[in-house]
Amino acid sequence: MVNDYSFLDNLELDGEISQAQSDRRNHAGDFGTRDEDEVEPNVVVFAKSTTDVSTIVSAANDHDIPVTPYAAGTGLEGNATPIEGGISLDTTRMDSVREIRPDDLQIDVEAGAIGDEVNEALERYGLFFPPLPSSGAISTIGGMIATDASGQRTVKYGEVADWVLALEVVLPDGSVIEAGSKAVKTSSGYNLKELLVGSEGTLGIITCATLKLAGRPEQVKGGRAVFPTLNDATEAISDAVTSGVDVAKIELIDDRTALLANDYADTDLPEQPMVFVEFHANHGIDEEIDFCRTIFETHELERMEIAAGEKMEQLWQVRKDITYAAEEYDPDLDIGPPGDVTVPISQYPEMIAEVRAIAEEYDFFVPCFGHAGDGNLHYFVLADYDDPEEAAHAQEAYATLVERAIKLNGTATGEHGIGVGKRKFMEREHGEAAVDAMRAIKQALDPKETLNPGKIFPPKDDSEDEDSRDESESLEIDTDSG
Amino acid sequence: MVNDYSFLDNLELDGEISQAQSDRRNHAGDFGTRDEDEVEPNVVVFAKSTTDVSTIVSAANDHDIPVTPYAAGTGLEGNATPIEGGISLDTTRMDSVREIRPDDLQIDVEAGAIGDEVNEALERYGLFFPPLPSSGAISTIGGMIATDASGQRTVKYGEVADWVLALEVVLPDGSVIEAGSKAVKTSSGYNLKELLVGSEGTLGIITCATLKLAGRPEQVKGGRAVFPTLNDATEAISDAVTSGVDVAKIELIDDRTALLANDYADTDLPEQPMVFVEFHANHGIDEEIDFCRTIFETHELERMEIAAGEKMEQLWQVRKDITYAAEEYDPDLDIGPPGDVTVPISQYPEMIAEVRAIAEEYDFFVPCFGHAGDGNLHYFVLADYDDPEEAAHAQEAYATLVERAIKLNGTATGEHGIGVGKRKFMEREHGEAAVDAMRAIKQALDPKETLNPGKIFPPKDDSEDEDSRDESESLEIDTDSG
Repeated sequence: MVNDYSFLDNLELDGEISQAQSDRRNHAGDFGTRDEDEVEPNVVVFAKSTTDVSTIVSAANDHDIPVTPYAAGTGLEGNATPIEGGISLDTTRMDSVREIRPDDLQIDVEAGAIGDEVNEALERYGLFFPPLPSSGAISTIGGMIATDASGQRTVKYGEVADWVLALEVVLPDGSVIEAGSKAVKTSSGYNLKELLVGSEGTLGIITCATLKLAGRPEQVKGGRAVFPTLNDATEAISDAVTSGVDVAKIELIDDRTALLANDYADTDLPEQPMVFVEFHANHGIDEEIDFCRTIFETHELERMEIAAGEKMEQLWQVRKDITYAAEEYDPDLDIGPPGDVTVPISQYPEMIAEVRAIAEEYDFFVPCFGHAGDGNLHYFVLADYDDPEEAAHAQEAYATLVERAIKLNGTATGEHGIGVGKRKFMEREHGEAAVDAMRAIKQALDPKETLNPGKIFPPKDDSEDEDSRDESESLEIDTDSG
Repeated sequence: MVNDYSFLDNLELDGEISQAQSDRRNHAGDFGTRDEDEVEPNVVVFAKSTTDVSTIVSAANDHDIPVTPYAAGTGLEGNATPIEGGISLDTTRMDSVREIRPDDLQIDVEAGAIGDEVNEALERYGLFFPPLPSSGAISTIGGMIATDASGQRTVKYGEVADWVLALEVVLPDGSVIEAGSKAVKTSSGYNLKELLVGSEGTLGIITCATLKLAGRPEQVKGGRAVFPTLNDATEAISDAVTSGVDVAKIELIDDRTALLANDYADTDLPEQPMVFVEFHANHGIDEEIDFCRTIFETHELERMEIAAGEKMEQLWQVRKDITYAAEEYDPDLDIGPPGDVTVPISQYPEMIAEVRAIAEEYDFFVPCFGHAGDGNLHYFVLADYDDPEEAAHAQEAYATLVERAIKLNGTATGEHGIGVGKRKFMEREHGEAAVDAMRAIKQALDPKETLNPGKIFPPKDDSEDEDSRDESESLEIDTDSG
């Protein structure tokens, strides 16, 4: 069917409608989409207001045209890219801070605002938005909420979602609701806000968020600790977290990642497992750091360097460079889709052992690292993804690791969402009845499948997804992280 | 229609089916139901297992019989009592601790377990379930989750829901799902767990919960502070919270409540506004208390007494006795339905001023108190609810306060849920489009309205609820707190 977009000509918008090739191209993929998997929208709409979003969605719904919301494009699972053309609804021009209420520790900010911009606006009040993920410098508040993002500080402050009080959302019929409450707690009705969080724009388009804030900590210190074995490092982390060390970040990198990092930055770090930590406090930070050190020492701690300010940033640089280091490690090897499994923390050492075993079994170089305090593990299966046979083999290794995580009571995706890339794991993780319940909700709120069709749910008649239920079959991964 | 319950005879259950008058009577009301509003179920099923719940729900769904889950009966809004007979599904015999995983700070506990029992089971691990509400000694974990409960410690630890990782739930067709994940974070699929929290058994029946736990704090101290005026007290609270004082409880009682308490316990407390505080820490508790005191002093603090252990409990006794004190204050006056509004904390002084103004305007004695750190305010409109005219007048005063809270960006119910009593405020608070979205979800997951019919949503054709949208009309309140 060739869709007719002439209905757009009659709409009055504050923003802009574009069919320019460059705009369509710019909305065809995200950070995780391989070039050959990009799908261009037919039209890009740059919304400027909630009314714009409502107008477009309502008209598109009437005309059976799919609308896929798009923001910074930093997703990794194809969460915000079209699978069948239609309208890409770009929210990045809706980036105003509507109101800051310092006495309530609240900000109302439009969906397209970049994370760091929010913190800049809050600086003069001594406040900040604590759960910002590492991508906060480039990704939008709306995108973070839509994918249920989290990050390094989640171990102390929780996920982005935990700091969202209310959402202004445009539903598939164009109606505008406020879900949640500006009161810090409510038990009134269904938790629509929580349902919309992580729904990846398939149930509604987030146009504005009321976020909770916190005072900036007066003391910040951090650094890194070196352990002899990966097992010591993971057990030290697990012990620290369950002992209640008040740590704001606690990140693991394995010796393979240390190797990559050395190679990238031309440094001579020990090629050993390292744990990166950061502490936030208003008083007593050194006492807390000592508490942490004492626990680390019972796990064969070799060295622990702690600093503040610029020196702390230097100690952390290795952790920050990982993705670049992995990408540049070998010009013949791609990093593939970034793993994002999360397991209960007691299973973290076992999960890492699984990574090692699978890497050996499939004969790939698989550096792993991640937000260990949450049991969240990232990994790259380094392979030549241009070679179809090797790519299939690497994808199988990757998928096998996801299956193992699920078996360890974990999840396929801790913070990147499902998008297209992880659809095949939905039934394995949640069971058919739960996925059917999710489908029923989608059907109830978006009966014409106007919003972001094709995401989250495995295609019912797709043999590829059937295959994914059989571990002996090779798995197709649609996205690649470049 | 006379329903035929003979199909129950063919079901094999681990638990028990009863049509005894005493059992039916015991499941006809909750703490908030006036005797004359009680509705007996036709049958009470005491489930012993998830399979029981599934068997009953599935069969009832097939036979078009409503099922209302019931636990400790401590609800205040008729959340768990039938409105039209049917089956009362009692979960209190499902109270096992299935597993404690101290290394993961997790417990799997069945829905019927009492809050305090969970903490007793955890004691030997040095762990506890932090967000337990004040009713924790008598109410069940399942009931708390189903009504999105919270309480005094929420200001530090968050709501019950914030500590729920996963739920085992029986859906209306009898299928059993696990919603959420035992990993501490996941971004996989729709947040069914969050949707089920607070859905009051209208979308599914919770049979087991995986809860997050925390280490017991090594230091606990608390007590009370006396202020000259209510405004000083509320501003002191607001200032302490926004300044980031790490307080575990911060509760207000007004001078009217102090009067009640004196009368009840025959004490000679100052009849002035008081703020009750409790601090939890692993180190530095006195430093934190000093920080709090310094802030209180800028708001005309008159006296602050802090203690630990038994002495602390004594200081807190007044706060604990409030409901009893209010009930016994005057034999001719009933406390009516307990108010539970919550507003952004900056609006808390304004909300309390509204209570005073409305009390004066309607000429009722209205003591108020509550979880001030969250902006949550409880109040009683003391009146003779047996006198229809006075009852209507008191209900109007009560409802007017709810409307004012909503206008202050607040919510009708911070922690008691909607049930029957607060249905009339749903559209005012959320707007029609949001309530329609909630209705669509109900319809999608429970098309035959098998589970807890008549709750949360205002009856569409009920003129009483129409009236509630007009402030000039008298409002009917269906529940009363006894």
